[in-house]
This record gives sequence, C-alpha cells and structure tokens, in this order.
Amino acid sequence: MASAASLPIEAPPVLGADDALSELAAMVADDLAACNRVIVAHMQSEVELIPRLAAHLVAAGGKRIRPILTLASARLCGYGGGQRHVNLAACVEFIHTATLLHDDVVDGSQLRRGLASANAVFGNQASVLVGDFLFSRSFQLMTADGSLHVLRILSDAAATIAEGEVLQLVTQNDLSTVEDRYLAVIQGKTAALFAAACRVGAVVANRPETEEMALADYGTAIGMAFQLVDDALDYAADQRTLGKTVGDDFREGKITLPVLAAFHAGSPEDQAFWRRTIEDSAQTDEDLEHALALMARTGAIETTLRRAEGFAARAKAALAIFPQGSVRWGLEAVADFTVRRGR
Amino acid sequence: MASAASLPIEAPPVLGADDALSELAAMVADDLAACNRVIVAHMQSEVELIPRLAAHLVAAGGKRIRPILTLASARLCGYGGGQRHVNLAACVEFIHTATLLHDDVVDGSQLRRGLASANAVFGNQASVLVGDFLFSRSFQLMTADGSLHVLRILSDAAATIAEGEVLQLVTQNDLSTVEDRYLAVIQGKTAALFAAACRVGAVVANRPETEEMALADYGTAIGMAFQLVDDALDYAADQRTLGKTVGDDFREGKITLPVLAAFHAGSPEDQAFWRRTIEDSAQTDEDLEHALALMARTGAIETTLRRAEGFAARAKAALAIFPQGSVRWGLEAVADFTVRRGR
Repeated sequence: MASAASLPIEAPPVLGADDALSELAAMVADDLAACNRVIVAHMQSEVELIPRLAAHLVAAGGKRIRPILTLASARLCGYGGGQRHVNLAACVEFIHTATLLHDDVVDGSQLRRGLASANAVFGNQASVLVGDFLFSRSFQLMTADGSLHVLRILSDAAATIAEGEVLQLVTQNDLSTVEDRYLAVIQGKTAALFAAACRVGAVVANRPETEEMALADYGTAIGMAFQLVDDALDYAADQRTLGKTVGDDFREGKITLPVLAAFHAGSPEDQAFWRRTIEDSAQTDEDLEHALALMARTGAIETTLRRAEGFAARAKAALAIFPQGSVRWGLEAVADFTVRRGR
Repeated sequence: MASAASLPIEAPPVLGADDALSELAAMVADDLAACNRVIVAHMQSEVELIPRLAAHLVAAGGKRIRPILTLASARLCGYGGGQRHVNLAACVEFIHTATLLHDDVVDGSQLRRGLASANAVFGNQASVLVGDFLFSRSFQLMTADGSLHVLRILSDAAATIAEGEVLQLVTQNDLSTVEDRYLAVIQGKTAALFAAACRVGAVVANRPETEEMALADYGTAIGMAFQLVDDALDYAADQRTLGKTVGDDFREGKITLPVLAAFHAGSPEDQAFWRRTIEDSAQTDEDLEHALALMARTGAIETTLRRAEGFAARAKAALAIFPQGSVRWGLEAVADFTVRRGR
C-alpha cells in the first residue's frame, strides 16, 4: 500500500490479488463474468436514467461478495450444467444494490465505495425509484428461474432486510439499546442476505436440507462478522481505504457495537460525552477525534473485532459437513479475510 | 353533499353509497373483508413502527379500488372454492401501498387522502423502508400462493410501475414532453397495476388467455381513465373532495395532460406563463389561480376528461366477451364512475 497515498480520494478500494475474496472470485471467474453480463443486461430499460444510475453503482466497483458467495456455494454443492446459480447471483446483487440505493437516501450519504453516492449525483428521488426498479427486476429474474423455494428464501430475506433497516432507524440515537438489539439489526440488514445468497447455492444443486442450512449458517455468520468489522472500520479506517466518509455512523448517531462498548466501558464523563453527541446529536468538529480516542482507551474496537472473530469461527465451523477442497478452503479463507480487513 | 362543507379538512373523502365502486365492493363484500384481514395480518412485524406506519395509510381509508377489481374479476371468471383471489388482492394493495409511500417521499407530499401523509408524520426514512417492507411482503404472499404465472404478472407490473415513475421524474418541468410520453408515464405508474390486478382474477380461475387479456385490457383502460381524471382533479377539485393538496402537480412542475393541453392551446403570453411556472419553477402565490383560469379558457380540463371517457369506453368494450350479469355490469359502471368523479 506504499503508493496508496498518491491515489485520489475518489478511487475505489483496490483489493490485493492475494486476498481471499479475490482468490474465491478467481475460482468462479467464468461464472462471475457471466453474472456481470446478466446484471448489465437486466438493468437496461427504455427509460435511460435507469441504466445510467445503475451503472454508476456498478462502475463504482462493488466487491460482489454476495454473488461470489452464491456462485461458490453452488460450486461447493457440485452444481453444474446450468446457469441458474449465475442468474440467482445476479438477483442477490440486485437486491443488495436496491438496498444500497435506499440506504444512502435514508442516511443522506454522500460517498459510496469512494465515489459520490448515487443520491448525491442523481438525487434522492431517482435513487428511491431506481432502487424499486432493481428490486422488481430481481423478482422478475427469480420468477424466470422458476423455483418457488428460491423465491421463498429471497422474498423472506428481502422482508427481513427491511425490518432490520427499520429497527436500525428506531434504535438511532438511543444509547439504551442493548447489544442483542444491535445484533438483531445487523442480522436483518446484512446477515439475512448473506445467508440467502449462500443457501441458494445448495438449492440449485438439489442438496439435502442439512447442506442448505449449513450454508445458511455460514452466510449468517459471515454476514455478522462483515457488518461488525464495517462498524469498527467506521471509527478506525481512513476515508480512502473505507471508501466512505469516516465517522458517518458517529455523525448520524447510529448505534453500533463500538459505540455501545465505549459507552458501557466509559467513565461518567465519557458517558456524558456519548449522550451529548449520540443521543442529543449536539456535535462539534473536534468530537469525532475525541470519540476515536475514547474507543482506543476503552478497547471498543478490539471488543467489536473479537466479536467478529467469533462469528468468523462459527462460519468456518458450519462448513465442516462439506468435503475438503479448494472451494471449501476458499470460503473458510473469506471468513478470515472478513475479519482481517478490520485488523 | 350538503353537509360536506362542515367536514374538517382532514376527513377522508366519503363515497356515497350509491356510487358504482361501492356497489361493486358490496358484491364482493365478504371477500373484501377477508382481504382486509389478510392485509392487517401481513403488515404485522416485531418492529412495531412497521404496523404503526402501515396502519396510518390503511386507516386513511383508501378506496381499495385495485383489490376490489381483483376480487370482482375473479368473480366474473367464476372462481370459487378458494382464497387465492383474496390473498392476491392483498398483494396488489401492498404493491400499491408501497408505491404510495415512495411517491409521497419523492413528491414531498404532505397530504394523502385528506390526512397528513406517512412521510409527514413518520419521516421520509421510515416511509422508504416500510415501503420496501410492504413490497417484500407482497412477494412473500405471492410465493405462498405458488403460481409462477401470477408472480410473472405482478413482478412485471412492479418493474413497469418503477419505470413509469422514473419517466415521470425525467419529464418533470419539461413542456416539450409529447402527449405520448405522458401517456407512457401514466400507463406505467398507474395502468400497469390496474391491468395486473384484473388479470390475476382470470388466472386464479384458470380461464383461457383471451379472458386474461380482456381483463388486462379492461384494467389498463380503467387505469388510464383513473389517472387522467386524477390529473384533471388536481386543477379542478377543492382540497376536501380531492383528499390531497390542490395544485400539487402545478407546484411540482409535473407534466400532465391538463398542462400540456393548456400550453399548446395557449397564446404566446400564456405559453410564457407556463414556461415560467412549470419549466423554471418560478411561481408566485397568484399563479395557481391564473393557471386554473387558463385551463378553463383553453378547455384543457375538458380535453383531459374527454380522453378519459375514451379510455372508459375502451374498458367497457373489453368486457364484451364476458356473459352479461351483475358483476360485468358492476365493472362497466366502475368505468363510468371513474370518469364521473371528474365531472
């Protein structure tokens, strides 16, 4: 990363070729390329603002972690001879993209993956409506796939995501939120789609329910770890690596584990600081620096990352029923990678 | 309506018991009551803001025109012995409710059906997310119904709605919009769901494609008439009957047929007025009054209502292949009613 300092701040985060996600992506490279073609083909519309706005997000270079997980899970389960996993990986990415568009509107975010967010460029109105379009497209693709089982998994996940997002909204600015409620938020807003993405891989391969549920468990755990690390990075990473504005969660008064941990481990004076900044949203320019210092002193980031490590271990354990091999090892490595990017 | 003047402005519009929609609703009263129960049951969530916000819209007393059309279409097609039409009518209403929530955010509307809009009460963030939840719920219900044919019809409709809404957004403030493009907007944002709502009635009854498409044609035409009249009412009705703020479309610079008709039939001076108010969004308090006067002088409302009458006639003609009887007459009367509320 020696040359990283010279990168413009708008550059998307660059993943080293040696990281676990890139290795897993390489194992399913042809399928991932096919998935990208399905995504581009299905974001087309005669209403040209739709592909233009959608392309803005696609061009911003998401890591495609969810579709990679669908493709790798299908591979792990021995699926072959069809394109169902490719189409369903695209469905998963469309649902994810739709929620990103709506999240950025809800949060008023100006940056996404190091680029101006879609709502910053095209406005909130277009982001809401194109999100709805991509969400609908996802269900059109699922319907074309024709499996009611898959439709149930992904429509359940979509409802759970929305519930998680609403729960996050109602816990905002509320320091009395208990950790279980925070975990319920990230289970809904993040882990549910990771779980569905992985589970679908077993469904297309017609594997027994034990394997389906093992992959769902893997996805849930990896999703929890992923979000915990994301929440830690919001207080730890610099803007360039993070690809979003540092301190966004702080400024929004979002209740995440780093905040809860720092609050509960803090002195009465610290707690007054958190109440003023998070509950009363009365922040000055220096407050973020002080928040980071309090996190360092209370070990709140460390607490969060340890929790993430626990979920990563659970993710790997869930794969134990599958035969050893490069895809299983690749999925295990992604679990470790998820946590490592926070270290 | 003699006593209407004493109603508070917040009262939802009251339909006379003698209007055609109420009569059709009465023909399917038991099914409609069952549909309302399905709606209430499926808007529940452990996240209590969700049912609270959803109930706000339900309590605001929508006319339920779309689910009534689904139930009546199923009846017209001789469907009996099951609850599929009831569940799918609820799906249609959920899709409609989700789009209402998002529309009000996009338009910044403060009133809906004579009550404060959900975004005015609960905020834009909650409205976006609860809209997503209801949309997901709709697909969960469809999946439980189990017909891929129905899923295709409704997921196609959902994508078309979003496209229509985006097209409306890009034509906003643009007086060079041609009438065909305006018709494409209302076909997408309104008529597509009316068409799907009716068509589904034939699908559950296992009727041949000719009947399915006849009901789709009826629904499309009635949806076009409905939206044309709505757009006329925005320049013609008083706030109490309309149940929304009069002149909303004008203030937003929305391109509707009344505006296009008044613009094209206007003098150079009139056209300058429309350019300033609609294209440049430079409006003063007196401009709405002047806009209404120009509409009266150019016959723009009359032009719009005549177009709506044409669609109502088309709607009735589409029903010709069905046997005479109270349900068919009821559906025909609804087509007339749709236009009459604009007269």
